[in-house]
Amino acid sequence: MSSPPKNFGVVLFPGFQSLDVFGPLDVLNILSTETNLNLSILAATLDPVSTKHKQGKISNSNFHESIVPTHTFDSAPKDLEVLLIPGGFGTRDEANLRPAIEFIKTVYPSLKYCLTVCTGSAVLAKTGVLDGRQATSNKKAFVWAKEQGPNVKWVSKARWVVDGNIWTSSGISAGIDLIYAWVEQVYGEEIAGFIADSSEYERNRDSGRDRFAERWGVAEL
Amino acid sequence: MSSPPKNFGVVLFPGFQSLDVFGPLDVLNILSTETNLNLSILAATLDPVSTKHKQGKISNSNFHESIVPTHTFDSAPKDLEVLLIPGGFGTRDEANLRPAIEFIKTVYPSLKYCLTVCTGSAVLAKTGVLDGRQATSNKKAFVWAKEQGPNVKWVSKARWVVDGNIWTSSGISAGIDLIYAWVEQVYGEEIAGFIADSSEYERNRDSGRDRFAERWGVAEL
Repeated sequence: MSSPPKNFGVVLFPGFQSLDVFGPLDVLNILSTETNLNLSILAATLDPVSTKHKQGKISNSNFHESIVPTHTFDSAPKDLEVLLIPGGFGTRDEANLRPAIEFIKTVYPSLKYCLTVCTGSAVLAKTGVLDGRQATSNKKAFVWAKEQGPNVKWVSKARWVVDGNIWTSSGISAGIDLIYAWVEQVYGEEIAGFIADSSEYERNRDSGRDRFAERWGVAEL
Repeated sequence: MSSPPKNFGVVLFPGFQSLDVFGPLDVLNILSTETNLNLSILAATLDPVSTKHKQGKISNSNFHESIVPTHTFDSAPKDLEVLLIPGGFGTRDEANLRPAIEFIKTVYPSLKYCLTVCTGSAVLAKTGVLDGRQATSNKKAFVWAKEQGPNVKWVSKARWVVDGNIWTSSGISAGIDLIYAWVEQVYGEEIAGFIADSSEYERNRDSGRDRFAERWGVAEL
């Protein structure tokens, strides 16, 4: 058995969904007080990356948050072991997303684990890495996500899906259940349960339990 | 009936808990695509504010995130209507917290709503604003939180508590249930349900349902 991973990266692009990032990272932040972990926050440049995007009915809101990267994709540490890829409306803009896609293609072969939340699986699908693999995605955006990876074995009714070293979750909040399941597998049930109780979080521990596939009409896809 | 609020602020201090902020903000980010809203991210200075803190067993991790403020406490917009106050280990450092406490004291009288997550209620308690009011807090940190406001009517077994215009939630994840309940009351059940389904979130809609008070041994306090 190899030792549990220590070196994490999260991919940011303009218009990422904030909870896709901070649902998992909050759990890992707490884990990092129990075991030695390092986080690199990766983006095309070192400029803060905003959740702002052009989607939605209302264009005159001014309501978004900006996160500070620690590294550019070009200067990413060479020893990354775990990569977290969020989704969000920014995934709909090809030019916006291209630096992230090129980075993921380059880094994937040296990773121990790749985790996606929401339409982060559509981003990963665009790299080709998911071809022939099982994966899930956001249920409201599932039809679009499927189109981003026609050779992926998409699973519509799942809270999360594991195929090899790739863990993909359903939409937004599902990333929290994914990260607890992953922490449980990699670091053990005791610490996963302790962090969930400390965070006062009611886990969905059944990866097949997913009422949102029916809610968004994609259960039969 | 007055119109629903538009102008939101979130208070940041070093060592805030990331999900205390981004659980509620992710919901409000989505709400802001449906109705016109503005967010001010408030801190002592305009320097990015980190989740880094000195607590925990392991001091050699390098695992934290930094958020960019939009305003200092001194330059905050005068028309803030809703203030969100997170918790986190940074609340244990008085000097660290003092600018936030002074700001909250000053701004509270002009707010329509004040929302706290986790030990954010301990921060609010330190201002005196919670004196004589009912409130809850993080259950693992409940004994400490109570000490921060001896004149507060602390409620140990509650997912969240509403007293007048002050909404306080239990620990970390409970802030998500609080914000959905608040959005439901202020903007309506339909939009709250739509955002929860879009986020694939299973709400706890019962403010009295809280197994974590027993888990952390504070149900009888």
